[in-house]
Amino acid sequence: MAKAPKTAIEPTREQDYPEWFQQVIKAAELAELSPVRGCMVIKPWGYALWENIQQVLDRMFKETGHVNAYFPLFIPMSYLEKEAEHVEGFAKECAVVTHHRLEPSPDGGLQPAGKLEEPLIVRPTSETIIGEMFSRWVQSYRDLPILINQWANVVRWEMRTRMFLRTAEFLWQEGHTAHATEAEAREETETMLKVYADFAENWMAMPVIQGEKTEGERFPGAVATYCIEAMMQDRKALQAGTSHFLGQNFAKAQKIQYLSDQGEETYAWTTSWGVSTRLIGAMIMTHSDDDGLVLPPKLAPKHVVILPIYKDDSREAILNYCNEIAEALRKQLFANRTIEVEIDDRDLRGGEKVWQHIKKGVPIRLEIGPRDMEKDAVFMGRRDKGPKEKQTLSRSDFIDQAVSILEEMQDNLYQRALEFREDNTKTIEDKETFKAYFTPKNKKKPEIHGGFARAYYVDDPELETFLKELKVTIRCLPFEEETKPGRCFFTGKETSQVAIFAKAY
Amino acid sequence: MAKAPKTAIEPTREQDYPEWFQQVIKAAELAELSPVRGCMVIKPWGYALWENIQQVLDRMFKETGHVNAYFPLFIPMSYLEKEAEHVEGFAKECAVVTHHRLEPSPDGGLQPAGKLEEPLIVRPTSETIIGEMFSRWVQSYRDLPILINQWANVVRWEMRTRMFLRTAEFLWQEGHTAHATEAEAREETETMLKVYADFAENWMAMPVIQGEKTEGERFPGAVATYCIEAMMQDRKALQAGTSHFLGQNFAKAQKIQYLSDQGEETYAWTTSWGVSTRLIGAMIMTHSDDDGLVLPPKLAPKHVVILPIYKDDSREAILNYCNEIAEALRKQLFANRTIEVEIDDRDLRGGEKVWQHIKKGVPIRLEIGPRDMEKDAVFMGRRDKGPKEKQTLSRSDFIDQAVSILEEMQDNLYQRALEFREDNTKTIEDKETFKAYFTPKNKKKPEIHGGFARAYYVDDPELETFLKELKVTIRCLPFEEETKPGRCFFTGKETSQVAIFAKAY
Repeated sequence: MAKAPKTAIEPTREQDYPEWFQQVIKAAELAELSPVRGCMVIKPWGYALWENIQQVLDRMFKETGHVNAYFPLFIPMSYLEKEAEHVEGFAKECAVVTHHRLEPSPDGGLQPAGKLEEPLIVRPTSETIIGEMFSRWVQSYRDLPILINQWANVVRWEMRTRMFLRTAEFLWQEGHTAHATEAEAREETETMLKVYADFAENWMAMPVIQGEKTEGERFPGAVATYCIEAMMQDRKALQAGTSHFLGQNFAKAQKIQYLSDQGEETYAWTTSWGVSTRLIGAMIMTHSDDDGLVLPPKLAPKHVVILPIYKDDSREAILNYCNEIAEALRKQLFANRTIEVEIDDRDLRGGEKVWQHIKKGVPIRLEIGPRDMEKDAVFMGRRDKGPKEKQTLSRSDFIDQAVSILEEMQDNLYQRALEFREDNTKTIEDKETFKAYFTPKNKKKPEIHGGFARAYYVDDPELETFLKELKVTIRCLPFEEETKPGRCFFTGKETSQVAIFAKAY
Repeated sequence: MAKAPKTAIEPTREQDYPEWFQQVIKAAELAELSPVRGCMVIKPWGYALWENIQQVLDRMFKETGHVNAYFPLFIPMSYLEKEAEHVEGFAKECAVVTHHRLEPSPDGGLQPAGKLEEPLIVRPTSETIIGEMFSRWVQSYRDLPILINQWANVVRWEMRTRMFLRTAEFLWQEGHTAHATEAEAREETETMLKVYADFAENWMAMPVIQGEKTEGERFPGAVATYCIEAMMQDRKALQAGTSHFLGQNFAKAQKIQYLSDQGEETYAWTTSWGVSTRLIGAMIMTHSDDDGLVLPPKLAPKHVVILPIYKDDSREAILNYCNEIAEALRKQLFANRTIEVEIDDRDLRGGEKVWQHIKKGVPIRLEIGPRDMEKDAVFMGRRDKGPKEKQTLSRSDFIDQAVSILEEMQDNLYQRALEFREDNTKTIEDKETFKAYFTPKNKKKPEIHGGFARAYYVDDPELETFLKELKVTIRCLPFEEETKPGRCFFTGKETSQVAIFAKAY
């Protein structure tokens, strides 16, 4: 067996959290940087995770009445101009197509040629182009609601990129809906936020706080933006999904009008909502440890890996035994799939293989050699326990319990993340405590700070400056808070508004 | 009931085939042109078809050992230059990103700003960027083969576009593989061509001819290109999928090298293969008729639509009866899904609804009113029969036979398309017959010509001119032909090479 290092990932979370994150991605073979600035390659293990995310969300979207469609990658520049706040929000970071062919250049290479009459923007989001199509599709109140989702790639030319969290190109889904009434559109916005929260908590095992964004953090052009916010293991917040009530802003900009049942021309009410491959970043930072990726079993590309250990004379018998176990597992349903099993019979040292699967976050490992077979047993390692904490189970017990072990692991991950968030969330009533809470004790480790702060708050320009200096933002105005009045921690003014404050990704 | 027009689609296929195609797409709500030049919007019914295509192909790819991954949308301009034939093939029609933001222009609008150091090409295909990643991933023979597929959008700036058949942006899958030996790479190329042929014939109900492309029709940079070719109802050929053996061309351009088990630095052998949303165009033109879309049941988004017909007092009973039928159907497996049923209870005239579903190609329609319910029966229309040719079946017979009716329809569509192709394929032995075969009898209807010609052939510059004048191309050198020698229809030279000639999309 290969000698395992003290931890499989170096540095550890405590030594250097941002670098640990990169190393987990590398060791799990989730993704890597491409030669194109800010764009990553999603490798098969990472893409399989995305496929599982897609499959579950897609079903949820369809169950809530949505259908998928596909709209152009390109948006004419003039479309972006139609909604003033929207263009303000996206003009500074978009890829612009200006030519439609290449021709030989004087230096023997190539140069752009065939200038377009109007530049095209690679979609950073599709409100404007989808709004244009909605305006063609909607004539009468009978054409509403339109409930559409698109799975697509989008591009935002971010200056500082980080794999999965902020890349120039990323994959996402964007829901776009149009409704006859404000109430319906608001209900849609809430429904989809709840779908996201449900997915985060019950599939990703990631507890989230649901709430509304403050004005400064709203989607450009929205009337209200709702979000789910999760705490990462460095106590920073990550916005994991957003749902926007767009009012009639885009309907007016795009002329999405319908004849009401009273015969009046009326603007529709629209919404949009999205989650992206950022969810994979959130999943990594919520659950993984110093030995690498830890996956919620419900989304793991594989649930069980079987590692046969044999010499030449025991090979066939061991492989047969492993296959029997695999077949018995593959007949069982866990969450929305049958249990996915891999038998890893590669010609590699056993220790190396075990560590590869630990780093990739496979929930259950079975090491099976002649002695296990003789005892009609399996030797099991669980990814939610230490790498050496393995146990022997009889084959039939393991097969009978496999689903409940996976369920237990899923629950454990959620509970652990919830406890971590609760342990690192503090209700704060005054400015000094707030400041101390968010000031790192050790300047070399700026990530070690308080966590989430819950505090009464009243909007104030001086508060904004104060927060900016601490690099803290208002993550959301949470839904679930009591509305008993209290005093703003900063201004001392009375208010019933509570906010969640945190440093954030 | 609404009075149906003589045909639901105008013009008919015979009156104006190209316009008929556009009108079928419109009437079925599959797609429509977007405001972005050459780009279409794939509407929910069209996208659901694409999802079904994806689902089946994705499973086939996984069963043949492939995994999915995702590579950047953008390709640095210099990458395209690396393979001389490849750049020649794609430089003339690619979208070029030159800037990364927008700034206010003097006229009060926007203008591109932030010029990129190196222009980026929106991928027309991904050999070069994926090849670059392969070169990083492959060190030793143990790293091979790499068997990857990507589902993605690509852009080719075509001058003349046509929905589904040739659009500036389209959706596709592109397989990219790297192997240690030539034999393995050739085998992969063949395997994937067979997967495509299997999918075309057994899922799309579209007979195809498998063969190799001639040199002039090869993928830019390939050593050999294999294809599946189908006959549309205007007797033209449509290339429905291609599989390329790339030899070591891209491996050399991209430095995909490995250390062999003999310790030698060796170039890998690569392949690529793809099908696109063009398959939807192929499906439309193979099966649809003058009443609109006809879908192979195995890929239809819905298999059965139930149209309840009631007055106020019978409403509840009829809807219950319809629901019972729907539930009984939804428990049954057809192909890879349970039977998909819609109960269309919209407040629209019955005739209008029936015709909508005919135009959308739903395989089975059930009209159910009080008299059908009394008789415990259903009144069924099948999309492979005339719109008035309906029949009454007892409920239990229908439920028992539903799967076999769908299977029969699937077979019928295939057989009909196969007969059509055979009836319109001719073995030709001389130049004059060939010319007459491809010359339209009526200049106003250039689409009415012979069809496919099968002929012995020897490559010759004069033959190329001759074919160009007739607007005929060599579709492929088919695999299944005998190799008995014969005489080239054009040069009279002896050869054992047969080719399929046709006008083509």
